[in-house]
Amino acid sequence: MTQTSKNIAIIGSGLVGSLLAIFLRKKGHSVTVFDRRPDIRTIEFSGRSINLAMSNRGWKSLRKVGLEESIREIAIPMDKRAMHVYDKPVYYQNYGKDGEAIWSISRGILNRRMIDLAEEAGTQFRFNEKVWDVDLPEAKIYTGETVKSAWKEYQFDLIFGCDGAFSRVRHKMQRRSRFDYSQNFIDVGYKELTIPPNPDGSHKLGKNSFHIWPRGKFMLIALPNIDGSFTCTLFLPFEGDISFDRIKTEEDAKAFFETYFPNVRKEIENLTQDFFKNPTSAMVTMKCYPWTYWNKVALVGDSAHAIVPFYGQGMNAGFEDIYQLDELMGQYGDDWERIFVEYQKIRKPNADAIAELSYRNFMEMSSKTADTMFLLQKKIEKHFAAKHPDKWIPVYSRVTFSDRPYAEALAIGDEQEKIMQEVMKLPDIESNWDSKEVEKTILRLLDNKKAT
Amino acid sequence: MTQTSKNIAIIGSGLVGSLLAIFLRKKGHSVTVFDRRPDIRTIEFSGRSINLAMSNRGWKSLRKVGLEESIREIAIPMDKRAMHVYDKPVYYQNYGKDGEAIWSISRGILNRRMIDLAEEAGTQFRFNEKVWDVDLPEAKIYTGETVKSAWKEYQFDLIFGCDGAFSRVRHKMQRRSRFDYSQNFIDVGYKELTIPPNPDGSHKLGKNSFHIWPRGKFMLIALPNIDGSFTCTLFLPFEGDISFDRIKTEEDAKAFFETYFPNVRKEIENLTQDFFKNPTSAMVTMKCYPWTYWNKVALVGDSAHAIVPFYGQGMNAGFEDIYQLDELMGQYGDDWERIFVEYQKIRKPNADAIAELSYRNFMEMSSKTADTMFLLQKKIEKHFAAKHPDKWIPVYSRVTFSDRPYAEALAIGDEQEKIMQEVMKLPDIESNWDSKEVEKTILRLLDNKKAT
Repeated sequence: MTQTSKNIAIIGSGLVGSLLAIFLRKKGHSVTVFDRRPDIRTIEFSGRSINLAMSNRGWKSLRKVGLEESIREIAIPMDKRAMHVYDKPVYYQNYGKDGEAIWSISRGILNRRMIDLAEEAGTQFRFNEKVWDVDLPEAKIYTGETVKSAWKEYQFDLIFGCDGAFSRVRHKMQRRSRFDYSQNFIDVGYKELTIPPNPDGSHKLGKNSFHIWPRGKFMLIALPNIDGSFTCTLFLPFEGDISFDRIKTEEDAKAFFETYFPNVRKEIENLTQDFFKNPTSAMVTMKCYPWTYWNKVALVGDSAHAIVPFYGQGMNAGFEDIYQLDELMGQYGDDWERIFVEYQKIRKPNADAIAELSYRNFMEMSSKTADTMFLLQKKIEKHFAAKHPDKWIPVYSRVTFSDRPYAEALAIGDEQEKIMQEVMKLPDIESNWDSKEVEKTILRLLDNKKAT
Repeated sequence: MTQTSKNIAIIGSGLVGSLLAIFLRKKGHSVTVFDRRPDIRTIEFSGRSINLAMSNRGWKSLRKVGLEESIREIAIPMDKRAMHVYDKPVYYQNYGKDGEAIWSISRGILNRRMIDLAEEAGTQFRFNEKVWDVDLPEAKIYTGETVKSAWKEYQFDLIFGCDGAFSRVRHKMQRRSRFDYSQNFIDVGYKELTIPPNPDGSHKLGKNSFHIWPRGKFMLIALPNIDGSFTCTLFLPFEGDISFDRIKTEEDAKAFFETYFPNVRKEIENLTQDFFKNPTSAMVTMKCYPWTYWNKVALVGDSAHAIVPFYGQGMNAGFEDIYQLDELMGQYGDDWERIFVEYQKIRKPNADAIAELSYRNFMEMSSKTADTMFLLQKKIEKHFAAKHPDKWIPVYSRVTFSDRPYAEALAIGDEQEKIMQEVMKLPDIESNWDSKEVEKTILRLLDNKKAT
């Protein structure tokens, strides 16, 4: 169904804002993107970014507007984890079946490319223009220098809030009655660090791996960039025995890396400089509802559902929001009220599911990686899945390599977990874990589930 | 320990704000209370109020500053529920043991009295003065006509946010990183209605009862006032078959009352007038953390922990916050950082517990009152508690008539629930519910708990 051309404002020029602009331009709408920050193409990156891992849902959305190829150019496939366990040789875990990979992309580089593409598609960008207020029923926005300065008023037909976890648009919706909202921070922070390329421009570590140095309550990860460097992220508790709180001097930082990450210490050349130049950032799970206001305003991406980054799905979920919106625009044409109602109804349970899965991954990493029974359980699941790939698709694969709803992945994962709890109670499971009996038990439990 | 006199601002002149002012004046502090609304002593009440049920925790706090007697004058004891079940004669349920009662007080009348008392104690009130911004580290507040008008700056030593569920002070704290926050609305709204007194000034219903007309998904309650009237509250879903949404005309409202509340229809003389004059209000559970900012700012009462009203503990919990603060002021003198840290550490789990208990009461009322097994369980508990008052104190009594922590009441209640789930599995429990065997089973299960 075609749509009548509307005058649309998007607040936020991040990844979701600029991709949404491209989709809306394809439908023939007039699109203006506001951002309180300067044009990211004209400034240095923030030093507070975790590299993105684009997976199936992200690519699917890009494909829908013909951008897949253009973005592959700035992405590096990672088909496995490289596990740098303390005092052991590196070992590898494939992410999926042959050829399945997630793709490392620098957030800054991707954002610049997306803005270029949106601009080419006819989007108007207004950088350095902060939105102070939104009139929801009238779809008006008010921008200005400060809260007290003279404000400029803009009238639109529709407004999309793509302004992230601390969205101004949502903030306005939140002051209304019957708006559910929550923000919950985890007690772990993160910091960006860099491994520069070799002098010849090549990568210092295997470039097709997602590198992980798991250390229980904290960990380091490294994702490759196309310039030969790696963007590393140190996840570490804010407070406590081993924490950001305890690293106050260059000596502290060096000692911390010598002790826990000796095999990578020398790669991070500007370690102490990065450490004290780059900010320590917090991570939040943000949920809200409703996501839309009548046929006037809708939240898309992090502004509607910010999640912790431990499943690598934040951007993918935001891009999938846009894919869904686009489907509904095709279905319902000018009935924006219907589009918005269906959009939030379809997406909300999926956003909640990926929030839950991401949080669980954080909990697993911080409390279960040292639990031998947990590791044994994962080993049994993997063993069984390899033998019966049709009967046991791991949750990770459902989330990362399929486009089935996140909520379905969560529900099936919970079923699998129940089965595994039964399996773990089997006598001598530690020695029998790869036996025929265990395999039969799982098959029987799977059949039972199907029967109910 | 004595305290050095501080210059203190309280935002909000409600019940918690005015009681806190009285406590702080007793300690010799200089106190200014700001409120964006006019002086409640000079205006009509809002018509959106549920009568208060003051119970033990509220009285205990008032007693500590010598106000108990003065407030008893405007309160009416209710020692029982009067249950107006559809098509049956009224029956009664005592709240506790002999002499235990909760006390009905009009929120408006109590608030006026508290402001009088705070003023007599030397508090300065600044009504009609809206706080637009708070500088947390500097303890400065900014007030003014509008967001754009010239603001007035005030410098204080300490600021208390007693500005309710939609607190401006908390709102400022919420914009900081690592501040946990949630607001969740229930899908039931409420509306204030009035049963006026008889022509001779007497009450139309028994005045020492909390009157309830339970109707499954909705209900009406009536609490006595000292002028002979009753303040009624209709709790009803916002949307659905029987809902506020479906009552659009005077005829709708009359028909609704004729159908579901025939025995009280004629008492609510101005029913349709009240119905369409008074607003329909929403109910929210609001949680946040931290509650304090260094040694400068603290949230007290609803601004820190708004709860749904189904346990009658909102004001009581807020008054208990103040009691706790006062204890800590006595203990730690001028160490306000310590006072604030301990205050939030002690109160937060208890605020979460009463939020949970209040929400569960709502769920019970709306989904379990028609469940015969649930009613049987309640009957067994009551029967057992009457025989063994030392072994089984109902959660309601712990919350309402004791001053033990809310969190303890919740934990013990959960233990009791586990025991009852075992009991309800006994064969023929429907016919054996008052047998020796059931009694012995409960005693045994209680002993088991103690042993673990």
